[in-house]
Amino acid sequence: VDRLGELVFVGLGLSSERDVSLQGIDEAKTADVVFAEFYTSLMPKLRISELEKLVGNRVTVLSRHDLEEDEGRKIFAVAEKGKSVFLVPGDPLIATTHIDLRIRAEKRGIKTRLVHSASIVSAVIGLSGLQNYKYGRSVTIPFSDQGLVSETPYKVIKANKKMGLHTLCFLDVRKEEKRYITVKEGLELLLGVEKVKDQRIVTLNTIAVGIARAGSIVPVVKSDYVKELLEFDFGAVPHTIVFPGKLHFMEAEALIVLTKAPKTVWRMVK
Amino acid sequence: VDRLGELVFVGLGLSSERDVSLQGIDEAKTADVVFAEFYTSLMPKLRISELEKLVGNRVTVLSRHDLEEDEGRKIFAVAEKGKSVFLVPGDPLIATTHIDLRIRAEKRGIKTRLVHSASIVSAVIGLSGLQNYKYGRSVTIPFSDQGLVSETPYKVIKANKKMGLHTLCFLDVRKEEKRYITVKEGLELLLGVEKVKDQRIVTLNTIAVGIARAGSIVPVVKSDYVKELLEFDFGAVPHTIVFPGKLHFMEAEALIVLTKAPKTVWRMVK
Repeated sequence: VDRLGELVFVGLGLSSERDVSLQGIDEAKTADVVFAEFYTSLMPKLRISELEKLVGNRVTVLSRHDLEEDEGRKIFAVAEKGKSVFLVPGDPLIATTHIDLRIRAEKRGIKTRLVHSASIVSAVIGLSGLQNYKYGRSVTIPFSDQGLVSETPYKVIKANKKMGLHTLCFLDVRKEEKRYITVKEGLELLLGVEKVKDQRIVTLNTIAVGIARAGSIVPVVKSDYVKELLEFDFGAVPHTIVFPGKLHFMEAEALIVLTKAPKTVWRMVK
Repeated sequence: VDRLGELVFVGLGLSSERDVSLQGIDEAKTADVVFAEFYTSLMPKLRISELEKLVGNRVTVLSRHDLEEDEGRKIFAVAEKGKSVFLVPGDPLIATTHIDLRIRAEKRGIKTRLVHSASIVSAVIGLSGLQNYKYGRSVTIPFSDQGLVSETPYKVIKANKKMGLHTLCFLDVRKEEKRYITVKEGLELLLGVEKVKDQRIVTLNTIAVGIARAGSIVPVVKSDYVKELLEFDFGAVPHTIVFPGKLHFMEAEALIVLTKAPKTVWRMVK
């Protein structure tokens, strides 16, 4: 059969193999080869054997090396003459690695398509109860290697607060090393920057929202003063942090009712 | 059986009934009553009869009146003693109406949970090829009623551009009236504000990305000068517009390769 090759990126969602869409399953069932990667995010409840049953196909798991140093050669070998399906955590093309792969595939004449899925971006917005259009730029809090702490997250929170906007802070993941930043560690990194900058952007008395396991059946979402969140048990990773800016009336109510915020958040209503 | 009532919000994704997750189907299958609303967004390929087959349950479609004036009374009547599942377009809790309903349910002692799904927020970010953390605040371009044109979208694009950030512009939907703003109309509304403000934020020579039917099998994504996009045939709604800010090298390449941008976008690389 002389058909054109294609590469379909399928989002797996956030927690288990049951977070993929029916459309995603349909695509994987008709693939010549199904690839997957699980290093850009943590899907805590995903069982590869169950995923293989769902798609009725073996799933070839690719490493960071396969995709970055080896530039996705295995995927392209299939996609140049047949149908290659690439399963990825979250919504496809939020991770830079996937955008890069898609560009290189198209340059080789491979057609690409996307099957979307739940993303940490919108899941956290939904869980916070804060309004989508009031979020400013988002930021990742990275690991502090050799004691070098990035000031970028602090600066982004500051710039957003100045405009009354909320900030979504992703927490860095090094899946291969089984290292994940927790709410507590993320807050400590920010308090470290505060100590140097001293601009009262993230202090012990700042209100934040800690979110654990967004997209799972049992997420934990808790708003409180930073000093309280440092002691709060969020359970297993992955974690995320939101810093609210100015609040609408309904956002204050959402934080109190849905995330157990202290009543003092009413003071953040402009 | 003396069990506590619950309300589960299930996201349906963006285009057809096959965009729901397996987890979402599982929840709807075990519901006492399955409700849905289709007025906050347009899911162009959704067939309610097929959705009913998938969930093995009748789906009760609620109107804006049921949820807003009548405050979701029908959902609460079920959720106070059993399991109520509420199917919604996109990812649940991005729409304000849903946040409001969730707050009121929790206040009545009804437990609430979310099953996430593809959202226009992350789908458009993925389709644009632009990087997630370089988007500033997003904004909706509303209908101009009685000739009153909102200046907010123009101001948001301006503020984001000043910081080098991209802007995601949602286009207003009045599902009941079958009215949807198109890329062309959205651009015309912004050019109208430009005429008054004259700050060269959205001119005929500004680069923008038009996106039609994000999340469907055949989305159209096209970057070009505004003057060209005004003439471009994007096909059926729903539409969305992105205004890029400063570009990284890889973002310029993504716009050219994935969205057929003119080569001049290289000039937007900082």
